[in-house]
Amino acid sequence: MRVLGVDPGLTRCGLGVVDGLSGRRARLVAVGVARSDPGLDVDQRLLAIATSIDAWLEEHAPDAVAVERVFAQHNVSTVMGTAQVAGIAMLAAARRRIPVALHTPSEVKAAVTGSGRADKPQVQAMVTRLLALTEVPKPADAADALAIAICHLWRPAGALGTPQRAPGSLTPAQLAWAQAEQSARRGAR
Amino acid sequence: MRVLGVDPGLTRCGLGVVDGLSGRRARLVAVGVARSDPGLDVDQRLLAIATSIDAWLEEHAPDAVAVERVFAQHNVSTVMGTAQVAGIAMLAAARRRIPVALHTPSEVKAAVTGSGRADKPQVQAMVTRLLALTEVPKPADAADALAIAICHLWRPAGALGTPQRAPGSLTPAQLAWAQAEQSARRGAR
Repeated sequence: MRVLGVDPGLTRCGLGVVDGLSGRRARLVAVGVARSDPGLDVDQRLLAIATSIDAWLEEHAPDAVAVERVFAQHNVSTVMGTAQVAGIAMLAAARRRIPVALHTPSEVKAAVTGSGRADKPQVQAMVTRLLALTEVPKPADAADALAIAICHLWRPAGALGTPQRAPGSLTPAQLAWAQAEQSARRGAR
Repeated sequence: MRVLGVDPGLTRCGLGVVDGLSGRRARLVAVGVARSDPGLDVDQRLLAIATSIDAWLEEHAPDAVAVERVFAQHNVSTVMGTAQVAGIAMLAAARRRIPVALHTPSEVKAAVTGSGRADKPQVQAMVTRLLALTEVPKPADAADALAIAICHLWRPAGALGTPQRAPGSLTPAQLAWAQAEQSARRGAR
């Protein structure tokens, strides 16, 4: 099972490919960042990121693409670009018939560190350890993409990641989870 | 000059193609809505909308694509899907080297009715009149897409629509405009 994790962003989009091995082990295949020039218009920036994502899908042929779920409250100044990049990543996978899963930041932290409230250095340290790397992947977006891929590999058996439905179509339980997630984030600011 | 206007949305994405004629007149070429099933996962919904947009670009070969600029505060329950669809529309145009412009709701209303605070029925009535149609295009998203296309046709000479840069890279003047836009919207609720 090979997973491409995507930490969406318009300036830096983290990309990390991980293979799942037996005995809950994982192996790094590739890690990096797709970048776009903030001086360009948004359509050209999206094209640059989409071109990188297509190249990664072509080269690494993942069995699944796991994307961090973006919430509208996350960071108002960058959230629209982040949502747009998440959209083009999902579209790129769908065009190649690769299954897509979305994982919340809390799910990713919990999968990698055991705590949904772990801080970034802790997540990065665990990613480094779990993949037996000699140093922390840089920049942070690249490490986050690996964490998302590991989260997807280690999701509960049978789960395909949280449903990818739009917020308006969440079930009451999913909505409660999303609201708790948002409260936790507001509390952390 | 032929413009495809896009009113982005995940459930209904308005699409309207308008030709600019001499003497500030405009002609309807095509109008409709790309839909996706709310029961599907988001990646499949994006694929459905992207397939429709690609077909419209192929069939109508517009000289420009004008997309309504989405603000993060707009409607939290649907804004992520709206942003994602705006992103895939911009990407589809960029892939075909068609110029992309973003217009705010206020700009669109002002261009079509003379007032940035016009209500939806007024915008729809003016679209119907300007294009000499016998009835108001339905649904509302379709009429809005035509209004966006007309706004782009009638933008001030030399302007390419408001810059498409991400919110973080707005100039102070653009930021002030965006904030005024958001205040006006909050005031209108």
